[in-house]
Amino acid sequence: MTDASRKLVTIVTEAILEVEICTAVESLGATGYTVTNARGSGSRGVRDAGWSTDSNVRIEVICSAELARRIENHMQKFYYENYAMVLFETDVSVLRPEKFS
Amino acid sequence: MTDASRKLVTIVTEAILEVEICTAVESLGATGYTVTNARGSGSRGVRDAGWSTDSNVRIEVICSAELARRIENHMQKFYYENYAMVLFETDVSVLRPEKFS
Amino acid sequence: MTDASRKLVTIVTEAILEVEICTAVESLGATGYTVTNARGSGSRGVRDAGWSTDSNVRIEVICSAELARRIENHMQKFYYENYAMVLFETDVSVLRPEKFS
Repeated sequence: MTDASRKLVTIVTEAILEVEICTAVESLGATGYTVTNARGSGSRGVRDAGWSTDSNVRIEVICSAELARRIENHMQKFYYENYAMVLFETDVSVLRPEKFS
Repeated sequence: MTDASRKLVTIVTEAILEVEICTAVESLGATGYTVTNARGSGSRGVRDAGWSTDSNVRIEVICSAELARRIENHMQKFYYENYAMVLFETDVSVLRPEKFS
Repeated sequence: MTDASRKLVTIVTEAILEVEICTAVESLGATGYTVTNARGSGSRGVRDAGWSTDSNVRIEVICSAELARRIENHMQKFYYENYAMVLFETDVSVLRPEKFS
């Protein structure tokens, strides 16, 4: 394919944050995102109070490395300490990459 | 693990296309696929009319690089211009890779 | 981000195994996991009897390469031959990696 390298940023967090985070991701410059419902268990930032709920979401964003960095900084600054949140980044090749700035 | 490199092809598209695309993926040679329900926002190909719906699916296929290329060509030829569709490819290591030609 | 390389282990299997596998993954040392509902089609280990069901789950674990290996060995030993199961591993960069031993 006429592929190009992009970053896939995956954010797993509390469902109550879905709208707020998707809005932030678009404001930062993302052209789209995909959300799936999820559940799970994990540590909860510095509080480490445990995390076990049926109400998680998994938000995926395809973007440039530069935008990925800005999304990560935003999440770290505003959410990572105080909410159950996991963020990871994967290298992907995208079909028709011009859709994802 | 007795791993081997394969491609993970992820297609995010309109739910109405699920059966048609899964059938095409198998016809092209895939030994299986995984589907999850999703929602999201994104540009819609050349029409760029916006894409905001609760009725998306996320289809994943593990396959060889050669089959990944054929799936991508098929999607680009028949769907990418006229449907809300995102396709990206990730390098993965698979346990028991002989299951995925 | 103050990132670090980790493995994302994805297990797609029969929903009936969810609790058992999540418990095993934590017992092996994982600090958390994410589960999404899925459906799909695929070969079923050595029995190859086909796999077509609405009741699959997709379990994701972020962990070290060493723990990924132990999870893979466990799944291969106890499940891979006799259940519908696919396991693959992806390289990811994680924000705040100290959460994932």
